[in-house]
Amino acid sequence: MIPRYSRPEMTAIWSPETKFRIWFEIEAHACDAQAALGVIPESAAKAVWKAKDAEFDVAKIDAIEREVKHDVIAFLTHLAEFIGPEARFVHQGMTSSDVLDTCFNVQLVRAADILLDDMDALCAALRRRAEEHKHTICIGRSHGIHAEPTTFGLKLAQAYVEMDRNRSRLAQARQEVATCAISGAVGTFANIDPSVEAHVAAKMGLETEPVSTQVIPRDRHAMFFAVLGVVASSIERIAIEIRHLQRTEVLEAEEYFSPGQKGSSAMPHKRNPVLTENLTGLARMVRAYALPAMENVALWHERDISHSSVERMIGPDATITLDFALARLTGVIDKLVVHPKNMERNLNQFRGLVHSQRVMLALTQKGVSREDAYRLVQRNAMKVWEEGADFMDELKSDAEVTAVMTREEIEANFDLGHHTKHVETIFARVFRPEDDDAA
Amino acid sequence: MIPRYSRPEMTAIWSPETKFRIWFEIEAHACDAQAALGVIPESAAKAVWKAKDAEFDVAKIDAIEREVKHDVIAFLTHLAEFIGPEARFVHQGMTSSDVLDTCFNVQLVRAADILLDDMDALCAALRRRAEEHKHTICIGRSHGIHAEPTTFGLKLAQAYVEMDRNRSRLAQARQEVATCAISGAVGTFANIDPSVEAHVAAKMGLETEPVSTQVIPRDRHAMFFAVLGVVASSIERIAIEIRHLQRTEVLEAEEYFSPGQKGSSAMPHKRNPVLTENLTGLARMVRAYALPAMENVALWHERDISHSSVERMIGPDATITLDFALARLTGVIDKLVVHPKNMERNLNQFRGLVHSQRVMLALTQKGVSREDAYRLVQRNAMKVWEEGADFMDELKSDAEVTAVMTREEIEANFDLGHHTKHVETIFARVFRPEDDDAA
Amino acid sequence: MIPRYSRPEMTAIWSPETKFRIWFEIEAHACDAQAALGVIPESAAKAVWKAKDAEFDVAKIDAIEREVKHDVIAFLTHLAEFIGPEARFVHQGMTSSDVLDTCFNVQLVRAADILLDDMDALCAALRRRAEEHKHTICIGRSHGIHAEPTTFGLKLAQAYVEMDRNRSRLAQARQEVATCAISGAVGTFANIDPSVEAHVAAKMGLETEPVSTQVIPRDRHAMFFAVLGVVASSIERIAIEIRHLQRTEVLEAEEYFSPGQKGSSAMPHKRNPVLTENLTGLARMVRAYALPAMENVALWHERDISHSSVERMIGPDATITLDFALARLTGVIDKLVVHPKNMERNLNQFRGLVHSQRVMLALTQKGVSREDAYRLVQRNAMKVWEEGADFMDELKSDAEVTAVMTREEIEANFDLGHHTKHVETIFARVFRPEDDDAA
Amino acid sequence: MIPRYSRPEMTAIWSPETKFRIWFEIEAHACDAQAALGVIPESAAKAVWKAKDAEFDVAKIDAIEREVKHDVIAFLTHLAEFIGPEARFVHQGMTSSDVLDTCFNVQLVRAADILLDDMDALCAALRRRAEEHKHTICIGRSHGIHAEPTTFGLKLAQAYVEMDRNRSRLAQARQEVATCAISGAVGTFANIDPSVEAHVAAKMGLETEPVSTQVIPRDRHAMFFAVLGVVASSIERIAIEIRHLQRTEVLEAEEYFSPGQKGSSAMPHKRNPVLTENLTGLARMVRAYALPAMENVALWHERDISHSSVERMIGPDATITLDFALARLTGVIDKLVVHPKNMERNLNQFRGLVHSQRVMLALTQKGVSREDAYRLVQRNAMKVWEEGADFMDELKSDAEVTAVMTREEIEANFDLGHHTKHVETIFARVFRPEDDDAA
Repeated sequence: MIPRYSRPEMTAIWSPETKFRIWFEIEAHACDAQAALGVIPESAAKAVWKAKDAEFDVAKIDAIEREVKHDVIAFLTHLAEFIGPEARFVHQGMTSSDVLDTCFNVQLVRAADILLDDMDALCAALRRRAEEHKHTICIGRSHGIHAEPTTFGLKLAQAYVEMDRNRSRLAQARQEVATCAISGAVGTFANIDPSVEAHVAAKMGLETEPVSTQVIPRDRHAMFFAVLGVVASSIERIAIEIRHLQRTEVLEAEEYFSPGQKGSSAMPHKRNPVLTENLTGLARMVRAYALPAMENVALWHERDISHSSVERMIGPDATITLDFALARLTGVIDKLVVHPKNMERNLNQFRGLVHSQRVMLALTQKGVSREDAYRLVQRNAMKVWEEGADFMDELKSDAEVTAVMTREEIEANFDLGHHTKHVETIFARVFRPEDDDAA
Repeated sequence: MIPRYSRPEMTAIWSPETKFRIWFEIEAHACDAQAALGVIPESAAKAVWKAKDAEFDVAKIDAIEREVKHDVIAFLTHLAEFIGPEARFVHQGMTSSDVLDTCFNVQLVRAADILLDDMDALCAALRRRAEEHKHTICIGRSHGIHAEPTTFGLKLAQAYVEMDRNRSRLAQARQEVATCAISGAVGTFANIDPSVEAHVAAKMGLETEPVSTQVIPRDRHAMFFAVLGVVASSIERIAIEIRHLQRTEVLEAEEYFSPGQKGSSAMPHKRNPVLTENLTGLARMVRAYALPAMENVALWHERDISHSSVERMIGPDATITLDFALARLTGVIDKLVVHPKNMERNLNQFRGLVHSQRVMLALTQKGVSREDAYRLVQRNAMKVWEEGADFMDELKSDAEVTAVMTREEIEANFDLGHHTKHVETIFARVFRPEDDDAA
Repeated sequence: MIPRYSRPEMTAIWSPETKFRIWFEIEAHACDAQAALGVIPESAAKAVWKAKDAEFDVAKIDAIEREVKHDVIAFLTHLAEFIGPEARFVHQGMTSSDVLDTCFNVQLVRAADILLDDMDALCAALRRRAEEHKHTICIGRSHGIHAEPTTFGLKLAQAYVEMDRNRSRLAQARQEVATCAISGAVGTFANIDPSVEAHVAAKMGLETEPVSTQVIPRDRHAMFFAVLGVVASSIERIAIEIRHLQRTEVLEAEEYFSPGQKGSSAMPHKRNPVLTENLTGLARMVRAYALPAMENVALWHERDISHSSVERMIGPDATITLDFALARLTGVIDKLVVHPKNMERNLNQFRGLVHSQRVMLALTQKGVSREDAYRLVQRNAMKVWEEGADFMDELKSDAEVTAVMTREEIEANFDLGHHTKHVETIFARVFRPEDDDAA
Repeated sequence: MIPRYSRPEMTAIWSPETKFRIWFEIEAHACDAQAALGVIPESAAKAVWKAKDAEFDVAKIDAIEREVKHDVIAFLTHLAEFIGPEARFVHQGMTSSDVLDTCFNVQLVRAADILLDDMDALCAALRRRAEEHKHTICIGRSHGIHAEPTTFGLKLAQAYVEMDRNRSRLAQARQEVATCAISGAVGTFANIDPSVEAHVAAKMGLETEPVSTQVIPRDRHAMFFAVLGVVASSIERIAIEIRHLQRTEVLEAEEYFSPGQKGSSAMPHKRNPVLTENLTGLARMVRAYALPAMENVALWHERDISHSSVERMIGPDATITLDFALARLTGVIDKLVVHPKNMERNLNQFRGLVHSQRVMLALTQKGVSREDAYRLVQRNAMKVWEEGADFMDELKSDAEVTAVMTREEIEANFDLGHHTKHVETIFARVFRPEDDDAA
């Protein structure tokens, strides 16, 4: 995480202030439950809430931690200043990980909520631009080579539906990490009743963890970070597409370039797709974080603490970077400058050759054998390729072709509508009616 | 994939024979749909099914491929031998990827089905052993250091519920890759009606892909392989646990060692946990395959073919290795030799010290201040640690302790039942009634 | 490793036959050393060499292994058939890993030797084509956008020098894994004299491992596979460059397309860069193998066997795949079809705008302020960009420009020689005299 | 990078202040060279050095950057405030990447120098403790199971020599990234003489980059970060060893636990190896950073900027984390509490069984057949294992054994000196005379 690639709302989730606030809530709710059980006095549980609006002094807590070398104890010591002598009832029967792990999951849930909003915004932008360019014809490319016509809207619809899948994956992953553990030293509830966990979970918007062993099992988090890696990979796909479309020779679309941006007009062609290049790099990072998250799963026995340093880093790094990337991509899509004229120019680069497959098919449907159809198309195609001729013209002057096809029949194969006739069908698959409100 | 770590059923999914069989089915179903549309003659569609029980000659197809440098054309050429002249209607309007991508997804779905069965078997073994050792007390360890008592059944219940989560993840991932694309050169259905795709999808047990662009989008596969990586990580967790438990100094459990296995009885302690060590390594491999799968997402424009070489390798490698690993782990769990006596010995290694936390809590509940309780426990604990005394005995002869606690009250803290009183609660969370049939 | 991406020489290194041959050599040399020490009879050491030209029966050894569950014992049992009763002196004082680890390193060294040859061939091809196109001018691109002219030879020279660095890295990594350990159960030489290790090492072309602990430490192998990952990444860089150059709109270079290759002439533009796309995918695989190799380093205590399954897979997979990729890339470079005319066409796409930076610099050197120079270039550039004018013509008709520069001075800025004047300097850096023999 | 795992010296390398300081030096040296060539006035070059001791105002530069959206221009604008009108001669003929890439390499070189010092300190600690425990006998373990005796010094010597190899690797990687590029827009030196690059390189302690293409090729950096990943893996190996040794049941060594550290004395056994667990996690992170570094190699054409975001993150993150980890590990080794008594206790856990292999060997050397030797050892071993007998006693009362061996001969096999007789040999391999000064 570095400021350059951070947004404040997501960054705030990972601040010490937020962390201590969540710790407080966990402890306070736990006290309520303990009081209900009669384990601690009602008055103690009430006293804890005196710190409800307290501003915890991070520097002070850090100073205590440097001394006692224990973060939760440092916090509790500071918390006692707000509560008074009844602070001794706080945290009873609990283990530090009860607080730390539940807090981490609350942070991941909140981060996921922001990311889901980010993805909604991105999907909305993709949908809007997809609808706008539903019928903007451009060449489709396989292997970077011209294939057959498609529309720019279809490209965006594909990106939409892929990101929509990612949204579902993240929603699922969010649910997976939305668990709470208040189960004591090795997860046996030896010193704390399971009802405390149930109460805290409900209050924090979490489910209880079926089996915790001091720690919440890390397969949940591995899945979470793996999903972030997949989301990042989809971001990369869109970023790479735009980088390709912005290439000097292609220039079918380009990132919006603000009028004041330095250096543009002396070399007007030199508008670099720096935002999507940046996204390509950020995707590499988010993807890389999935690996240590997976290595974190195999903790020793009931727990070791090797996952902790990893999570202190990838918790913020992965979510902040992905939040930034999603927002940046949304901006790119929103303002993307599309050049339909260049799309048309590129489509026509080979003077009709793009229709050669279809002509061949039409010939066979006219009863010409595959081999002959191929030969006929080939000899006219080569004239286009080598001599710069026009494909339709050549076909019309090829007696063997005109023997089986009229001029109108030849021309029919050059109708671009042929390629776009199912655009609506595909859009109807992607933008389902129930999505309408969301868009 | 290497034979040593392969099982035949999974390996068969990736054989050329299976692949060509699936290709055939896709082509034949497509012909049926094309005939229904009147695009090709009914008789042609029927003729195709003549090859239903044909044995395709892999070597022959390979030979043709070496010549034409195109795998699908090579197959179609061979297929024509079985069908006769009407073979020319096969594959009309389709693109090779329609066949390749749909086939790959069929293979992944079948692989997932085997893996789901593997996980059911593993879960059944974990559940059986968990029930068996529900009350087998052993020491719980955090950081590799004795913490508080737990039961061996709880360890296995944790493994069960984690693997059960993995099962759900894989079921979800299976559903995600269960899609079919028959959409032509750049996915516009320009030369093939969407109803053909719908028909083939239904026949092959797949959903139609909302937007394919010659290829089925690779975020689906990235997610699939990422899930395999998480499953592998959970396998590693269990493997590491067993390796720890089998350590010479711990020896609470060990892999079954068949009587004939060489080298055991001259050094009876030298029974190495080689199966779980092996699983640890295999987990590294399956995890590693997730990365290139994620890099495969960002194909260029409508498609490039960089994903293909990756998938030819990780398709078989990841699924075959994971299948082998799950089966091996199931065997390990099934036959795991558990040593409750050693568990008891280890639990008592520090003559009662494991109960120190609870004694301290009990003292505070008797009104002793935290500081005093700590001091009292500490001074008796140090005698145990340094002089080899027994903790309970020391407490009973400490006047300051006996001033607030009776002998019975002291002894109550050494009751192991305290630590196991919620085992049933946890088991009820894990083994839900609706699971009963499956178990 | 799959046959499609394998070459026989490299594959042979990883065959069971090769492995058993190496095992035999290690055992036989060890016997010689043991005999020299008087530990075993001279006659026994001589008897072992009776198996020098034996063909070991892999199936038979496998059958024995299935029974005894120990690969080295299975081999020794089979070996005894060739040697007779004196076989009992073989392997004395040794541990299986002495054989296995030393063998693995021999295999890696041999694999490295093939890879080094591959890299020599690739470098030779790169050099030849670099010299050929030393002065073939083309546009240089940053961010995929036209920047300033360079030469195609410089692109290849860059690739050459990068691959040459990789060659040095691999030579270093080869040296790192070229070690031998014959040190017994935990590496203490308790039952075998260090001179045996020294003798075997010398005979097998290896160095002795300073401290082995039954195993040769795996940091050596982690480094080896990491280097393969870096080599693969450089392959990817070249592959991506060619894929870009072959794009329909760019078409400055393309993979050689054999006349017989199917499907080319009906769509003559549809020549797909499938070889370099394939290389892009293979690079992802080789890179991925570096990770489990790094995870293999942290074995438990003196050794565990978790590295073994990983190495059985990545040993062949990484080296065979990289060998194939290097050879394929060499072929691509060797036969690469270069289109200097298209390079010229692309360079001139913006009618002189590529020289705008240089004109601006020339103006400032004429005393025009930066701001004014920028303004002058900008207003003429915009006419080129928006109206399709010619940049040089516009400058010549701009009074403010001609006030400070003569027509000749303006024209001088459009001299491409300006950009190529240091090509020789750079080539002299890359192709050092001492390399001449090698090329 | 997070403060918790950062040390100030390394962190300072990555501060904006340091970066701008390096940028200044590059620009100023370039001016000197340009003046020597007569490209800019001598006086201008001198004027630049007026900013030699200037304190650049990071906030101000950031503010300018937000406006012009270009970091180097922002810096140059700020720099002009110190230099005055002659600032216009600064950066002539250069491109931003000349500054950025050369600066990044300077930072990596400085980071490597700190890391090399860290490794020297770690090696010194390892050596000191290795010498101290050269003859401290402990059990060697394969698969976590007791094997044969070794010494604790040998374990540390192994760690030393592995880290020493890492030191060489890093020194090599440092040299690889120690390059400078001042070659202009696409690396052709079109607007700047190569002598400028040579001068700056010499002044900054770098070599000139043979072929840069606006950017310095990223294979160098991929190698650098891959080496950091290997170093981290070796750190993990040592950390895991200590974690194992500190396990409750083993307790042969433990991290130093300061008297004031909370929570220790009530559960004196509960001293957790938290530092080495932390190192295990940090190793995962440093390893993960190697991957995006490898993906950075394949930039598009002469360059794209996708590497930049990656490097802004992993540049600091990887070096700061590894610096912290090396220093932490050095502290752990320095103060490691070793328990030779527990080593002895563990060694004797099976009452002599550890010598069974050697007894078997001795029997065969007495002429007993392998099968018989095995049977004799086995039957006595089983008594030890099952009945808790003493192995030597059993052997002495086994008539079949005493028939071929005297009591003294039996006892000789229990001499631990047998296992340590080559410790000096191994130490002499590791701590070579030429290292003496360094130690």
